Amino acid sequence: MKICIIGYGTVGRGVVELIHKKKLDVTVVGVCGRNCGVYDEEGIDLGSLIDGTKDVGLDKYPGVRRDIDANKMIDMKCADVYVELTPTNVVDGEPGYSFIRRILANGCHAVTSNKGPVVLYYNELRKLASANNVKFLYEATVGGAMPVLNLVRENLRGNRVASVRGILNGTTNYILTRMGSEGAGFSQILKEAQELGIAEKDPSYDVDGVDAAAKAVIIANEFFSRDAHMEDVDVCGITRITPEFVSLAWKNGFSVKLIVEVGRDVLRVAPRLIERNHPLCVDGVLNAVNITVDMAREVTVVGYGAGKYETAGAVISDILSI
Amino acid sequence: MKICIIGYGTVGRGVVELIHKKKLDVTVVGVCGRNCGVYDEEGIDLGSLIDGTKDVGLDKYPGVRRDIDANKMIDMKCADVYVELTPTNVVDGEPGYSFIRRILANGCHAVTSNKGPVVLYYNELRKLASANNVKFLYEATVGGAMPVLNLVRENLRGNRVASVRGILNGTTNYILTRMGSEGAGFSQILKEAQELGIAEKDPSYDVDGVDAAAKAVIIANEFFSRDAHMEDVDVCGITRITPEFVSLAWKNGFSVKLIVEVGRDVLRVAPRLIERNHPLCVDGVLNAVNITVDMAREVTVVGYGAGKYETAGAVISDILSI
Repeated sequence: MKICIIGYGTVGRGVVELIHKKKLDVTVVGVCGRNCGVYDEEGIDLGSLIDGTKDVGLDKYPGVRRDIDANKMIDMKCADVYVELTPTNVVDGEPGYSFIRRILANGCHAVTSNKGPVVLYYNELRKLASANNVKFLYEATVGGAMPVLNLVRENLRGNRVASVRGILNGTTNYILTRMGSEGAGFSQILKEAQELGIAEKDPSYDVDGVDAAAKAVIIANEFFSRDAHMEDVDVCGITRITPEFVSLAWKNGFSVKLIVEVGRDVLRVAPRLIERNHPLCVDGVLNAVNITVDMAREVTVVGYGAGKYETAGAVISDILSI
Repeated sequence: MKICIIGYGTVGRGVVELIHKKKLDVTVVGVCGRNCGVYDEEGIDLGSLIDGTKDVGLDKYPGVRRDIDANKMIDMKCADVYVELTPTNVVDGEPGYSFIRRILANGCHAVTSNKGPVVLYYNELRKLASANNVKFLYEATVGGAMPVLNLVRENLRGNRVASVRGILNGTTNYILTRMGSEGAGFSQILKEAQELGIAEKDPSYDVDGVDAAAKAVIIANEFFSRDAHMEDVDVCGITRITPEFVSLAWKNGFSVKLIVEVGRDVLRVAPRLIERNHPLCVDGVLNAVNITVDMAREVTVVGYGAGKYETAGAVISDILSI
């Protein structure tokens, strides 16, 4: 199978490294950066690409071409699957949205790890994929390495999903876990998490619940055939949670977790008390999703929601399923 | 799709009820009991079958025929998929083993919830399926409703499994959980579990680790391409665990769990201390499996390992995947 990778950031590099290291039966014919690209219809020499871009961007790679970019490579239809890995933008979904639309309209399969286009244009992109008889997969957008969307689609075939509850943001889970075990305040733990690289310099996307809300929207549209958007989510972040509240919960056998709740009529992100022996009560940067269905009753899946190779692994799983 | 069900016990009834209730796009053309069967090439009236066998066996159903049995119905090749649901027998795998061999040799797909044939004749049956270009699926044999085999096969595509640890027996997990929370002894909790129907009258299959060992063998063969058999498993059950041991562990933040461990060179079932905040540390009758892989790092799945509709749901998921 021939693939073309659009976006050569952390996840893009992770995908290339894994394909190379694991000798997967996938031929990478193109890799595009912002205004440049590497192309070889016989398959790019991934070892050279990895070595040659180790400390620099794709644009410094000797084999890079300035006369091709993502749009050109999409229109060349040089790959069976285009893997769209540009940064997430939940405001207008660009540039991922335009790339994915172009890929699908051209009759090629698309895989993405980019929440922006999936959150903002879920139904439009699904319909476009369906009309062109191609696949559009985005497992990495919800829970990173942890199978959620494909778990229901493939493993729980025939089940009707009644409700979904989950911890879908590792940064807030890390902060709340440490507040619980150490009794320290939000700001202090946040500062330390930023120093450790677990929280971003601008932490609002995580701590205000925006990231979790984006995943809630995808789950609502995917499992409940809704037409949900960011503004439909009832969101409350974790910034106002006090150490006293966390301690009191802890003493009574509960942990405070930022919980995504999705159902036919529910779409919410808010701090919730979870019994410590409940399968959903996972600590640190772990993510967990609890899915209530009609046949299997309840299935919980726990895993790493972020990380270079974890996210790249979810992307590769989607590629191989095509 | 046309299916034929062999074995009309608890799981068989569960499958028929779910297909009927959920109006699944599956036509049941045959249902066989020990020496009788119901057959309609246009599709059996499942409502009548369910009502007519509510309190009695299939052999008392008015529409039952004595001139057909499982072997005859297999040789009629009346179905695309044969669903083998006879009781588990880990001594010689019969009658399931002969049925499955006959189904596959006839070029039909087979789905089973029966551990016996899968544990005893894993490689033979896989080869037979492959030689006849048909599918042989058995998700329900490991962890009931909880996706384990298909999770790795489908959702973690491209990942290499490094090791598997799991709680794969609900009865022992229930007993150990209550010993931990109540400080009571093994025999007392076992007696109560028997009264509640959670433990069998002859509990040795569960408490001596035989059931967990059978699942360990399937996992070893499935994920590590081994040729493992029951006698290769290093098994220690839970009968000699004292309440003092469980309490001491509990006070130090651990639970005692009967853990299945499988790797390239490991095949073991034994009581182990698990940290209470580890995702694998689930209580009551829940099952959990923690899978370490190269890309997604670690994925844990938690669910119900037994139960009429839960097991039937796993069978249906396999049927629908064909």
